[in-house]
Amino acid sequence: RIDGTRLLNRIKRLGAVGALPDGGVCRLALTDEDRTGRDLLVIWMRELGLEVSIDAIGNIWGVRAGIEDGPPVMVGSHVDSVATGGLYDGVLGVMTGLEIAAALDDAGTRTRKPFAVAAFTNEEGARFAPDMMGSGVHQGALDLSEMLATVGIDGAVLGDELRRIGYAGDIAPRSLVPAAFLELHVEQGPVLEREGVRIGAVTGVQGISWTEFTVSGQSNHAGTTPMAMRHDAGLVAARIAVEARAIASDFGPPQVATVGLVEVEPGLVNVVPQTARMTVDLRNTDNERLKAAEARLREAAARFAAEEGCAVTARSLARFDPVAFDPTLVDRVENAARQRQLGVRRMPSGAGHDAQMFAPNCPTAMVFVPSVGGLSHNINEHTEPHDLVAGAEVLLDVVLDLLGE
Amino acid sequence: RIDGTRLLNRIKRLGAVGALPDGGVCRLALTDEDRTGRDLLVIWMRELGLEVSIDAIGNIWGVRAGIEDGPPVMVGSHVDSVATGGLYDGVLGVMTGLEIAAALDDAGTRTRKPFAVAAFTNEEGARFAPDMMGSGVHQGALDLSEMLATVGIDGAVLGDELRRIGYAGDIAPRSLVPAAFLELHVEQGPVLEREGVRIGAVTGVQGISWTEFTVSGQSNHAGTTPMAMRHDAGLVAARIAVEARAIASDFGPPQVATVGLVEVEPGLVNVVPQTARMTVDLRNTDNERLKAAEARLREAAARFAAEEGCAVTARSLARFDPVAFDPTLVDRVENAARQRQLGVRRMPSGAGHDAQMFAPNCPTAMVFVPSVGGLSHNINEHTEPHDLVAGAEVLLDVVLDLLGE
Ligand SMILES: NC(=O)NCCC(=O)O
Ligand SMILES: NC(=O)NCCC(=O)O
Repeated sequence: RIDGTRLLNRIKRLGAVGALPDGGVCRLALTDEDRTGRDLLVIWMRELGLEVSIDAIGNIWGVRAGIEDGPPVMVGSHVDSVATGGLYDGVLGVMTGLEIAAALDDAGTRTRKPFAVAAFTNEEGARFAPDMMGSGVHQGALDLSEMLATVGIDGAVLGDELRRIGYAGDIAPRSLVPAAFLELHVEQGPVLEREGVRIGAVTGVQGISWTEFTVSGQSNHAGTTPMAMRHDAGLVAARIAVEARAIASDFGPPQVATVGLVEVEPGLVNVVPQTARMTVDLRNTDNERLKAAEARLREAAARFAAEEGCAVTARSLARFDPVAFDPTLVDRVENAARQRQLGVRRMPSGAGHDAQMFAPNCPTAMVFVPSVGGLSHNINEHTEPHDLVAGAEVLLDVVLDLLGE
Repeated sequence: RIDGTRLLNRIKRLGAVGALPDGGVCRLALTDEDRTGRDLLVIWMRELGLEVSIDAIGNIWGVRAGIEDGPPVMVGSHVDSVATGGLYDGVLGVMTGLEIAAALDDAGTRTRKPFAVAAFTNEEGARFAPDMMGSGVHQGALDLSEMLATVGIDGAVLGDELRRIGYAGDIAPRSLVPAAFLELHVEQGPVLEREGVRIGAVTGVQGISWTEFTVSGQSNHAGTTPMAMRHDAGLVAARIAVEARAIASDFGPPQVATVGLVEVEPGLVNVVPQTARMTVDLRNTDNERLKAAEARLREAAARFAAEEGCAVTARSLARFDPVAFDPTLVDRVENAARQRQLGVRRMPSGAGHDAQMFAPNCPTAMVFVPSVGGLSHNINEHTEPHDLVAGAEVLLDVVLDLLGE
């Protein structure tokens, strides 16, 4: 009942918004590109007769009425991207929601429960931290006014940008707890491809910890300043980056550690850096291990700074505990895949997802489809069309079951 | 015969050009601020009746005629600065040249040889590499057309900027070899202050090696990409920075190593960096040791890149062998200081200077005065006024001696 051509066509049209010359997209949250993507989504929702709502953090959802009133079964994800993102990350989940609504219309089905399709603001956290911001506010895990005050990597204030692009809605956070929440997403990792399995039944999401370190030293002359007299903020940042990798090695999988950003000032070849700013992303499925990694990193940062006569401050940009999805719903995903003769495995998610913000409040699960080469947050991120459609079909089956007839 | 007030006043007026709110200056080569500084200098040269010349790389010099024709005794330095520079770096040497011309006028002195005051383009190398560019072209060590094609840190092309600010002169390089070259400069290091000595008789300049490393990896997701599958360009850059420091430690003084710049792309918290660009500044008074440091760094960079499955390229931005000044002229500096009852010591220079480009072609020497706290390339760079004047007096004595009556 999924119309693969129609689904892929919508994905393609959204992929043209913020398209990069060499492929992929740049549709950072609350930029002009994000606005255009949102506008397209709202037009499509209205075309499908969905009743569109926009809340105070800019989340968009469209509801298809059911025979009964009450909370809808919700399918959602996001349409923002990182600066060098792929075409399916987030978009697949939202477009599949639209496709399910269209498929219900095609079949003339009136479901018992209402059905909702949602796109959440700033899932990526690439322009404004933390990630999963819209879904976090929607479900009450993040504070609305704090999030509206967030300053982006370009200095913009989130609340201003939301108004600027016309998506500062008036619905309050925590206004809706769905009957169930489901998200279809590309895996963004190598597991499914490596094992030749087409569907992942996601059991939960690992814990995420983002920290920004700011190191203050003293700028000085690269030629005349004896090594012993230096207060090199850049060196401290480099040592923190090397330590982050050592933590991942010493802890072993599933611990991962990434330094995605480092900036030094004044940034001149013959000047010892005065300041350095960097981010460290630590993740682990085990919260106690994650806490141990965070502690080791902060201690090391303080030690490196002290050894160099620098000061260092650490600021948490995002901190989410590991999340477990609803085992019964995960079973349903697994069974739906089996019934369609698709290879399936249970697996945790390495990436954060909007679904994790719903998990504490309602039955929640996710469906993964393979990412070619495990590539993600890269313009060459890719999933084969037949896998995209297979994922949508599994999601449809689970959703239909939950909606009731 | 030096008028300290007049000298300090000119330094102060030039220091207002590109002044930063918290002190210090930003007068990067060939910016609007550099133009204004040059304009002021040319006005002052003309007021003193000097005959002003501008060459094809934008060097400016003014000549005071002597009784005899022939090559002048030249005093020179630079008026460009780093982005967070001090008030005396370079400016002291040029302004002292003007002050000597003024002092000669005051005394109504006609010297045997002509006297010249010069300001050389882009000594700092902060916006365009290499450093000592103007003096290097002037003395034929650097190629004019290659230098005009240099691309700056802001993407500007040097030749365009030179025309834009109106300082693309028509005099060819190598048009003038002075009878002797002298430069007064702030030490920019801690040696004179630490030893309580007011004058440095500079014996030469250490070798300078600037390399830009560009690392290419693969952007990927910070949460889903197993550590073993990463090609993290930022990690390779961090390891190179840590290795540069280790080279300085292992080689010991006078080897120094500085990573002044590091940039990662796309520079997002949850994306493994795709590319990293960084600079390494290595210096040593011994050219063989410097070569060994360069070799170890390049080997390490290649090894780190290979271990991470990244590619790395190295590009030389500047490479100057160590330079020895004229021992007889260094003696004269030392004697002049002694005669004025000023504590003096012979010392090598840690920083590059325009004088080093003259040393192969004519008798050359430098005079250093102390830098408070050894601070340089920092807005708080400072030299006490009485030291500035003492340095000018020593320079005057040596110059008078060379000019002959
Ligand atoms: N799915 C996804 O890429 N989310 C962005 C948040 C993160 O995991 O870094
Ligand atoms: N004197 C000075 O700071 N020159 C700039 C070139 C260098 O880095 O040494």
